[in-house]
Amino acid sequence: MNISYFNGYYLPHGEICISPDDRGFLFAEGVYEVARWYGKQFLGIESHTERLKRSLREMKIDWPEADNYPSLAHELIIRNRMAGKQALVYLQVTRGSAARTHSFPSPPVNPTVYAFAKEKKTGNRDNETGIGILMTEDIRWSRCDIKSISLLANTMGFQEALDKNMQECLFVRDGVMTECSHSNIFFVRDNIIYTHPESKYILSGVTRKIIIKTAREIGMIVKEEPVRADDLHKFREVFIGSTSFEITPVTGIDGVQIGNGVPGPVTRLIMSGFEAVLIPLKG
Amino acid sequence: MNISYFNGYYLPHGEICISPDDRGFLFAEGVYEVARWYGKQFLGIESHTERLKRSLREMKIDWPEADNYPSLAHELIIRNRMAGKQALVYLQVTRGSAARTHSFPSPPVNPTVYAFAKEKKTGNRDNETGIGILMTEDIRWSRCDIKSISLLANTMGFQEALDKNMQECLFVRDGVMTECSHSNIFFVRDNIIYTHPESKYILSGVTRKIIIKTAREIGMIVKEEPVRADDLHKFREVFIGSTSFEITPVTGIDGVQIGNGVPGPVTRLIMSGFEAVLIPLKG
Repeated sequence: MNISYFNGYYLPHGEICISPDDRGFLFAEGVYEVARWYGKQFLGIESHTERLKRSLREMKIDWPEADNYPSLAHELIIRNRMAGKQALVYLQVTRGSAARTHSFPSPPVNPTVYAFAKEKKTGNRDNETGIGILMTEDIRWSRCDIKSISLLANTMGFQEALDKNMQECLFVRDGVMTECSHSNIFFVRDNIIYTHPESKYILSGVTRKIIIKTAREIGMIVKEEPVRADDLHKFREVFIGSTSFEITPVTGIDGVQIGNGVPGPVTRLIMSGFEAVLIPLKG
Repeated sequence: MNISYFNGYYLPHGEICISPDDRGFLFAEGVYEVARWYGKQFLGIESHTERLKRSLREMKIDWPEADNYPSLAHELIIRNRMAGKQALVYLQVTRGSAARTHSFPSPPVNPTVYAFAKEKKTGNRDNETGIGILMTEDIRWSRCDIKSISLLANTMGFQEALDKNMQECLFVRDGVMTECSHSNIFFVRDNIIYTHPESKYILSGVTRKIIIKTAREIGMIVKEEPVRADDLHKFREVFIGSTSFEITPVTGIDGVQIGNGVPGPVTRLIMSGFEAVLIPLKG
């Protein structure tokens, strides 16, 4: 039986009841994080916690216990007997429940805090073969730096990609390839890695940060610069990164082959560097 | 005790329990409508129903009973003994509950359908005095024509207006005043009424349609054209319209007085026309 977390309690998942007055349900007024457990430790849990606190601040949601996220996440791993396995811990904090009106509840109400752990299946071969992705117009709002649950455009774009037999969708805003529906994207040209700079138009990914750090440590140049969709043909390799995708090579965009259509040497180098980061977390 | 509707049942509000797996709660994957009851009939319930069906179609949510919205809404009025009073009926339909993943549930699950009625307090004096509104950058997504629950940017903008002692916020996208956080906006110049044309950037408001029709019936010219924020000083009157605001004069924007700072003659004419539309609904 899955044990989840809800407003201070660890409960069987099926017993959790969200109020229909919850502002997460009515207005998408909430933030979330997904941290990955590698058997012995989480990857980048401090970065997830910092980002969570920033998202809460930007949305003026007050959850004083945000610093307890790592211990809460660990408790879910233990209670669900996932130590030794790979797992994802999802946490969501909304502004709480109040009679529906556009204005924030005054005085403020307690936020709703919900979290669950689920085992992460590993061993799909996308990392070896690469995936195809769909390019689509970025119709999202312009505060993509906030990790909010206002994800409608993300799920619509992702589903459109799946419907066309592709595995992720790449958003293009004003001609620039910003990021994917739930991953950041990297382009390689002349051994230099390009990725969109931090801005209101992308999420500052925890895996993105690790990729940039790892790449620089092994002597590669990473440029945080926008890449225009018109220039895609100039790049020999593309890969995406996220907590759930880790590093996944992209071998086709909109059905057009990238490079030789197989994961390229720079991508494989970064994947090895990333694997090395994971070793101590796996114990 | 308030009786609400939930997935086929009329229940005491407090007994309704939304699953934490609901895609409305996790991804803002849902649509809504708010219809106003004037004591004897709803205003424009057919328009609300048509728009609901369109929103569901655009989001690929299948709720075969959408045509029953008027009778469901009426049932809530009756069960809550609101006949003879003014009330709002809120209806929300989400894609339903399924283990969290960005892709739509496959096969599809039943949508979650939730509705409640609440008495509408009347008699505030905003219609007589006019209100002040805040101009702010439109950071919303670019499918504002879908009446989705992805309302984060709307509530943030509205709250910012309240924090600055204004009563609504006006969104500006690429220099154009599109609409407000939960109302459409109209500008008057030389006895001509201007409002943003239907597009991806505004919601096609039920009250907006009634205003346009009413204005034309009394011989006024309505131009559905974008108005640039830079041109605001050329307009002598401004008003907003929505189910909940009805028609409310705007007498100040960002602290700058509009016209003489009181509801102008064209606004008052449209308000009278609108009142005439309401007479048969009040019985």
